[in-house]
Amino acid sequence: MQPGDRVRVERGGVTNEGVLLPSTTETYLVVKLDGGYNVGIDREEASVEVLESGVHDIDGNGAGDDEVSEIEFEGELPTISLISTGGTIASTVDYRTGAVTAQFDAEDVLRAVPELAGRANYRGRVVANILSENMEVPIWQELARAVHEEIEAGADGIVVMHGTDTMQFTASALSFMLETPVPIVFTGSQRSADRPSSDNVMNAVCSVEAAKADHAEVLVCMHASASDDVCALHRGTRVRKNHTSRRDAFDTVGATPLGEVDYEAAIEEGADGDVADEAITFRRDYRERGSVELSLSPELEPGVELVKFTPGMDPAAWEYLDDKDGVVVEGTGLGHVHTDLIPRLEELADDGTAVVMTSQCLEGRVCDRVYDTGRDILDAGVIEGGDTLPGTAKVKLMWVLANVGGDAVAPESVAEAMRTDLAGELTAESQPWR
Amino acid sequence: MQPGDRVRVERGGVTNEGVLLPSTTETYLVVKLDGGYNVGIDREEASVEVLESGVHDIDGNGAGDDEVSEIEFEGELPTISLISTGGTIASTVDYRTGAVTAQFDAEDVLRAVPELAGRANYRGRVVANILSENMEVPIWQELARAVHEEIEAGADGIVVMHGTDTMQFTASALSFMLETPVPIVFTGSQRSADRPSSDNVMNAVCSVEAAKADHAEVLVCMHASASDDVCALHRGTRVRKNHTSRRDAFDTVGATPLGEVDYEAAIEEGADGDVADEAITFRRDYRERGSVELSLSPELEPGVELVKFTPGMDPAAWEYLDDKDGVVVEGTGLGHVHTDLIPRLEELADDGTAVVMTSQCLEGRVCDRVYDTGRDILDAGVIEGGDTLPGTAKVKLMWVLANVGGDAVAPESVAEAMRTDLAGELTAESQPWR
Repeated sequence: MQPGDRVRVERGGVTNEGVLLPSTTETYLVVKLDGGYNVGIDREEASVEVLESGVHDIDGNGAGDDEVSEIEFEGELPTISLISTGGTIASTVDYRTGAVTAQFDAEDVLRAVPELAGRANYRGRVVANILSENMEVPIWQELARAVHEEIEAGADGIVVMHGTDTMQFTASALSFMLETPVPIVFTGSQRSADRPSSDNVMNAVCSVEAAKADHAEVLVCMHASASDDVCALHRGTRVRKNHTSRRDAFDTVGATPLGEVDYEAAIEEGADGDVADEAITFRRDYRERGSVELSLSPELEPGVELVKFTPGMDPAAWEYLDDKDGVVVEGTGLGHVHTDLIPRLEELADDGTAVVMTSQCLEGRVCDRVYDTGRDILDAGVIEGGDTLPGTAKVKLMWVLANVGGDAVAPESVAEAMRTDLAGELTAESQPWR
Repeated sequence: MQPGDRVRVERGGVTNEGVLLPSTTETYLVVKLDGGYNVGIDREEASVEVLESGVHDIDGNGAGDDEVSEIEFEGELPTISLISTGGTIASTVDYRTGAVTAQFDAEDVLRAVPELAGRANYRGRVVANILSENMEVPIWQELARAVHEEIEAGADGIVVMHGTDTMQFTASALSFMLETPVPIVFTGSQRSADRPSSDNVMNAVCSVEAAKADHAEVLVCMHASASDDVCALHRGTRVRKNHTSRRDAFDTVGATPLGEVDYEAAIEEGADGDVADEAITFRRDYRERGSVELSLSPELEPGVELVKFTPGMDPAAWEYLDDKDGVVVEGTGLGHVHTDLIPRLEELADDGTAVVMTSQCLEGRVCDRVYDTGRDILDAGVIEGGDTLPGTAKVKLMWVLANVGGDAVAPESVAEAMRTDLAGELTAESQPWR
């Protein structure tokens, strides 16, 4: 049984047929089903029959972890680093199985997306190869270090390929951990690369052009509409996956997207290594390329939880938080929870946990000065998260607790940092209830 | 010290001046501040100075709990029951303090919103008088019983006045608990009634007209835009407060609103008790007035929790769920959690907890048949919530566990009910990832 074989796999009464793919683990088979999707199957639970050997020629070689592969074209081209965490772009099969992207290198990317050829010289690098729901804090840090190394090595821009489920959290994390003089552009795919409706080519081309362009932002670049015409550029700290399956699932919440990339113009203008600046339109102020020095602050305090309040919630849900350094509350409306819960928040705050209030409304600003419940919440020592998104607030609090005020973090400095815009996550205060 | 006195209140170093309002509790003072908002202040912690007695003539009398007040006009008018849970419409002061709406009766409503006079005969009733973040399951049930009684007593439509923070949960709860032959319309206010920008008059008028109209839906009626022109009609199970402070904070998620009410037309056509049907436009199919028999199924299983998954989450967050009857998971993307968490979900399901997967994307359908993590989640016994909103799924699961299959609930019947549209919460299945 070899990758490339056509197999029939039986597991738990279900039989699937497809092509065996190179698996990254000893324990899982990965099979590309005839319908186009891949499935990971526990080897121990499965019985496999080889129907035909070597049906597909699968290239099992490529750069492994921590290796950098390079591809250079003729002429004076910018250098773009393509960093994979498990994203789909370089893969001709489903990006989520954790198998195929292990064979990721710069050549694989170009084989998958030939439209990228000649637009830049590429460096390929694999940081992780996971389903994005399995993303963890240490991988955020490893990714930040890899991006830092790539920029130090001369990359003119970074494209991070990432599963879409938790892309917003990772983009937020890098927004806080890195000061960057060059673009860092996250992209992914909502449809696997071998489907006719796949968004991977357009997202890849637009992201590479966005990474060549004249800015120094951490962005998410994904389809802006159901058409194949424009990708939106979202700030990493304000972006959210707002639809389970649409190609234009990502939105900037509480603002307009930072800008956009016209696909057709990007294809034309970005060829031969030219910077397709005219394909890219910024709708709001942005940081210019080279305007800040590269620096890395990868420390994160992992003991931060996000807890969503809903009516009828068992107070026991808040019991495991005693030893946490931070808790982000996803409250209702302007930033409320049941009055009976306020003493618990006060207890946590008194014991040194930084408690930050955000709103499950997602849009708009928390404002606990308006109503009496809110005032009680502030009296309890809870920090207002402004209009920071709940998920972003969790990531920010992890970073703030590890980076603000040194080893003995003063609660006031944490609170002040949470009320300060560090990476576009917080817009200037208004009085939204008027 | 009497309601109506102008007072200076000092508490914890903060001094406020305003007018003392009739308080509902022995323990709280409620003061209307000069800025327009009210604040509740613990009597024990406050020192109060009366600056001037009897500045305002405050009517401290009115219908108490469980009393029904009535106002009739000349002619043949429909009867609308106005049921308050703490909403703002009947209040000339802030609706959230828990104080003033205790004096709520039909006369108070008309004093606050004179535009309602002559549109219907009114019955006024107070079910609760709380901040909506303090809403609890027994109050949902009490409200459902009150609505049932009012319809039995001949009401042609119900308007429920409710704080906006958790209105969507209560509207969902009534959607499952009641089969209704007449409209049940929830409304509230994002700006207190004494502010120039208050939305209370328009929301009240549009809601009363929506309650007179020819349908039998449980709806939320709130501003559709930033202008004072149209109120949207949202199905109770698909509505969400998507902004902390805007007057048009409420959206139908995953669909267009069921319909809308043109304010100007409603004002004109609905006078003299006429039904302003032409002011109301339905955009989708709806249940007609009288098409179902009135029935009440108020039982709810309170042991249901909603838990949101985020990257880096401590597995301890899932420990308190052992004795729960139901758990709604707010997963990522198509309905995923970290692979390491799946055995815990399986353990819960094996022990008899109904575990339902929803998506924090909010829009779109969960679909755990696409990727291998999803398949593992289904293998673990997790029920797919389709495109049911996470909060609605929590309320639905409470209702299903108490009403489907009798005392010994078969897991299959619960799963089947969660996959069946009961009250507009679930749209027909498609294959959204194609």
